[in-house]
Amino acid sequence: MSLYEELMKANEHYAASFDRSSLTAPPARKLAVVVCMDARLTVEEFLGLRTGDAHIIRNAGGVVTEDALRSLIISHKLLGTREFLVINHTDCGMLTFKDEDLRRRLAEETGADASELEFHAFDDLEANVRAQVQKIKDSPFIADDVVVRGLIYDVKTGRLREVA
Amino acid sequence: MSLYEELMKANEHYAASFDRSSLTAPPARKLAVVVCMDARLTVEEFLGLRTGDAHIIRNAGGVVTEDALRSLIISHKLLGTREFLVINHTDCGMLTFKDEDLRRRLAEETGADASELEFHAFDDLEANVRAQVQKIKDSPFIADDVVVRGLIYDVKTGRLREVA
Repeated sequence: MSLYEELMKANEHYAASFDRSSLTAPPARKLAVVVCMDARLTVEEFLGLRTGDAHIIRNAGGVVTEDALRSLIISHKLLGTREFLVINHTDCGMLTFKDEDLRRRLAEETGADASELEFHAFDDLEANVRAQVQKIKDSPFIADDVVVRGLIYDVKTGRLREVA
Repeated sequence: MSLYEELMKANEHYAASFDRSSLTAPPARKLAVVVCMDARLTVEEFLGLRTGDAHIIRNAGGVVTEDALRSLIISHKLLGTREFLVINHTDCGMLTFKDEDLRRRLAEETGADASELEFHAFDDLEANVRAQVQKIKDSPFIADDVVVRGLIYDVKTGRLREVA
């Protein structure tokens, strides 16, 4: 069985006992979380969230890019979230390369122009979290009374630590 | 107890029985998924994924923005994923507004210049999924033999349906 067939079979199983049809779009806990895409981070589990509780925004690094801000504005203004968490993690792939090296590699491997690509690699995890939290606080489109915190998830212990 | 205290307490509980410290960064199933941030979508559960299996990229709509492409390139080139899914869902908030209306509202409410913001709202769910899959296929930085599929998740049944 291919991976895709396996996933579709798992989904059939999920749908067979599905009991969440009464949930509506606004997150029940008025929470939005920006987290790294890393496969080791099972966000709902390590925060104790249930289906329907929170918007979960994920990208490489858990970076507050323009796109993450777009999602947060929609979350806050249209769907009523009032509290945000930014979560980066130890052993992140973003700590292991430099943007310029990946740009060079892509150009060499593909022949396409990679000079405009920004990857948001970083070398100081705590400083990165603090910078992401600040980007949200600086946005004129997020109300000042929205609470924003920054945390680091330790992939060796499963534990969160507040850093901003 | 505040929401934040509750989440931290749940995390303590999670860490107390944590047994995933041997996982490494590359996703075990070589899979990356682009999904909407919607609170009703518990991605690992409805796909039967375990911690460590897949990169999960999420934003408002499950749109293949430049930032989602950035994450997919890192996922594919640096962490070895070979198969992508794009998943949008029924009853998506992105079907309920127009970019220009939200820009106008933000400008009125905040006085800040919102004219450059792009929200990627859409009005045809299936067409949107197909367009996102195509954006990945068109990227010169994703190898041609990476398999890309597009699906719609039904929030009333929990069921996935392939559309691209």
